[in-house]
Amino acid sequence: MSVEGSLISFFFNPSSIAVIGASRNPEKPGHVILKNLIENRRRGLLKCQIYAVNPNIKEILGVKCYASIKDIPEPVDSVVIVVPAKIVPRVLEECGEKGVKAATIISAGFSEIGNVALENRVKEIALKHGIRIIGPNCLGIFDAYTGIDTIFLPPTKVLRDGRELVSAPRPKPGFISMISQSGALGNAALDYMAGENIGINKFVSYGNKIDVDESDLLEYFLDDPNTRVVIMYLENIKNGRRFIEVASKVSLRKPIVVLKAGRTGAGAKAAASHTAALAGVDEIYEAAFRKTGVIRAYNMEEMFDVAKALTYQPPARGPNIAVLTDGGGAGVMAADEIELLGMRVTDLSDQTLEKFSELKRKGVLVPFAVTDNPVDITGSATTEMYDISLRILLEDPKVDGVILIALHHIPGIPDLEEFIEKLTKTSWSYNKPVTVCVIGGSEAAVYIREKFDERYLPAYPSPERAVKAMYALVKYGLYLKKMNVLDRYLREWEPLSKA
Amino acid sequence: MSVEGSLISFFFNPSSIAVIGASRNPEKPGHVILKNLIENRRRGLLKCQIYAVNPNIKEILGVKCYASIKDIPEPVDSVVIVVPAKIVPRVLEECGEKGVKAATIISAGFSEIGNVALENRVKEIALKHGIRIIGPNCLGIFDAYTGIDTIFLPPTKVLRDGRELVSAPRPKPGFISMISQSGALGNAALDYMAGENIGINKFVSYGNKIDVDESDLLEYFLDDPNTRVVIMYLENIKNGRRFIEVASKVSLRKPIVVLKAGRTGAGAKAAASHTAALAGVDEIYEAAFRKTGVIRAYNMEEMFDVAKALTYQPPARGPNIAVLTDGGGAGVMAADEIELLGMRVTDLSDQTLEKFSELKRKGVLVPFAVTDNPVDITGSATTEMYDISLRILLEDPKVDGVILIALHHIPGIPDLEEFIEKLTKTSWSYNKPVTVCVIGGSEAAVYIREKFDERYLPAYPSPERAVKAMYALVKYGLYLKKMNVLDRYLREWEPLSKA
Repeated sequence: MSVEGSLISFFFNPSSIAVIGASRNPEKPGHVILKNLIENRRRGLLKCQIYAVNPNIKEILGVKCYASIKDIPEPVDSVVIVVPAKIVPRVLEECGEKGVKAATIISAGFSEIGNVALENRVKEIALKHGIRIIGPNCLGIFDAYTGIDTIFLPPTKVLRDGRELVSAPRPKPGFISMISQSGALGNAALDYMAGENIGINKFVSYGNKIDVDESDLLEYFLDDPNTRVVIMYLENIKNGRRFIEVASKVSLRKPIVVLKAGRTGAGAKAAASHTAALAGVDEIYEAAFRKTGVIRAYNMEEMFDVAKALTYQPPARGPNIAVLTDGGGAGVMAADEIELLGMRVTDLSDQTLEKFSELKRKGVLVPFAVTDNPVDITGSATTEMYDISLRILLEDPKVDGVILIALHHIPGIPDLEEFIEKLTKTSWSYNKPVTVCVIGGSEAAVYIREKFDERYLPAYPSPERAVKAMYALVKYGLYLKKMNVLDRYLREWEPLSKA
Repeated sequence: MSVEGSLISFFFNPSSIAVIGASRNPEKPGHVILKNLIENRRRGLLKCQIYAVNPNIKEILGVKCYASIKDIPEPVDSVVIVVPAKIVPRVLEECGEKGVKAATIISAGFSEIGNVALENRVKEIALKHGIRIIGPNCLGIFDAYTGIDTIFLPPTKVLRDGRELVSAPRPKPGFISMISQSGALGNAALDYMAGENIGINKFVSYGNKIDVDESDLLEYFLDDPNTRVVIMYLENIKNGRRFIEVASKVSLRKPIVVLKAGRTGAGAKAAASHTAALAGVDEIYEAAFRKTGVIRAYNMEEMFDVAKALTYQPPARGPNIAVLTDGGGAGVMAADEIELLGMRVTDLSDQTLEKFSELKRKGVLVPFAVTDNPVDITGSATTEMYDISLRILLEDPKVDGVILIALHHIPGIPDLEEFIEKLTKTSWSYNKPVTVCVIGGSEAAVYIREKFDERYLPAYPSPERAVKAMYALVKYGLYLKKMNVLDRYLREWEPLSKA
């Protein structure tokens, strides 16, 4: 099924969208959603036609209000339904008669609170008319490129002194698409991404998933050009066989990162209360993920650390990692983490050792620099020393990836911009992954991480996080190798930037 | 040994300090340190007399420069030595003749690069005169209360457009004292603390530790009033028996958190290159930490997460944890982490279940709220629902601690200040620990975490980090219980705030 041919594309890129249950009350989802859509069109982002449906009013936010979707004179591709649960079947029936292709049902009050019969009626109506459904009981979708946005939470909160704080931000456009079984967690993830300046392509919270589920979306993202990595927050999988089939296909071309909660007894029990579905035995999920090349993350921080690395950097050819640092302690921490994760703090080749010795003889590196791996060019390091050492490590055939640790406080890096530009350029001259660690919360630390990220060298605030990110690149590389597609993958892999 | 009686107090609170090797070159440590001290005195923070020593100049930064410390007409308690390694013995000899009590030797070029004989001479001179030494080859010390500051790294870096970025910030005054075997990592830690808005009391980087070592400092911090928690970055311990003796004594009254790097073969090898000392078999350290009640952290983020919790909150009486959330997914993640760490997602008492049922009947809680643990008051939650549920959980004798998860995006928390004030007040009405999770990087998320932190409810950006922080409070409580001092400890425990 191609992206163009799939009805699912009507969710993200309709030529017209109607908000059914549009409201004048600024607190209501039917207002927030309509307002977001109108605003995105005003900004030139959203290109499609917007309609409002509510039988009780004539106009909202300058948009004419229709009593029923059937009264809209033009065709309607997609609808967002925010009416009370009881009315959803009737409204959906009308959508069917109108020829709607895709319905996002935000409304709650279905199987999640025991109203199974009502949910089944919705399912039947959708099936009868061939309407694809996302939801019900969901946040719906957000597309950073087309401007479709059904997230209805209050965008800001106001403090007593009148200050308005952004509360539900949207991440910048990027190359990660996210699927979340939990709306609240999905929204929290968007908040997290915005804070970390990680870009998003498409976001879907699919709630009770009576129709479109994780496998459908995964399949859709396979051919979605701006999706480089798919991340999923899951509590259970509806149809395991289909998931395995789709995930196997997708992960040969795009990395999939899954955060699957409910892995312990207590967690699974909590998940069952949450989604009214059995979370299942975690070992089965674990096996399915391993088999299909899905990379599992164990918390949200890790999910995004890993997704960022997989989006920005090529997979590694093997588990042999070199560390370059100006602080011994951070090098030790990185070495520990590399070994703990089952990678190797690789021995360097004789040529590399000889190159380093020569640099010491010539006075390019200080005599007490440690040129075994981890390579510690010490607090006397300069941009030049970093750059030449990084080049030597990336040239070494025994090195599959480099952890670059820059404790930026040293006097030898007076020009941060030069440092970032040089190392980025060197790093992009080799088709090997590099992850960066810059510790600290100072303006300088934040600046350096941001600038490396902008040039697609993924940067992290601790050695362990930089190593874990590398580990995902190693795992994905080893999976592709096992499937005999690594060489082709690396040949076809296109960097987002050549700096 | 009391704090007053210890020579070590001359490092942190001398009545006079001399910078030996003061310099006019703004890049040099001898300039940066002198400038920081002068600035701290101008601000009224540093009360002691400041002297500069350099035979080649008459005056630096408005301070008269003496040719030798012996020329200073008044007594000198403490010195910071930043002269070349070769001259250190001569300079230290003069310090001895002058009656100096404490010398911080910043200068490098000793055993860390093979100059063992030179280092031994320094040791002998110090011993002969009874001078306590911190260093050599270290960052030295920082005291946020007395204004003693020997950190010599460039405080800012300048971008090409002229913007000046803070590069080496100092954390605000607080209640954590830190000992770091690595100067670079210690400085990175200060940068991290400043970014996370975690306060510090005293910081010591002791370099080659030819005299004052981790055990001396630990012992000193035992009676240091503003030290509530001691954190240590270690690669090796000089004298294991003494460390065990001191740590056992200290941890009965103050939690100790250790980040010990070099735990794997690769890490230990790297540590050996770094500090020219054997990192030792990790199992031995692990056993020593367990025996003495030292709480081990496995990375910097964890070290500070844990230290913050131990500084702000009382230890837990047991491992029975309740979770309160408005988002099911985050509750599942917390439940997973609780069980994975070996704590219990506790069953709630019958009285608690009855109280929740009644609240549902009365319509105070929504009917579909999950009132089993994890308690999920759903996206319909309000401040009132949070507050009453938190109170019920803290009252339950089966609950030893509560993880409070606030996905702040929901409309039911329009007044963030009220939310924070109420929950903080309720939390402080019980002598049980609470840790908070607020996911996200939006202004609102950052604001809520900051405000909870300011009221000493430790707040974290992920469920897992809030749970790990609670785990430290449980481990420390169980250790105190095993040592039969928990009841007394909790009776004497003074909250930093009653909100």
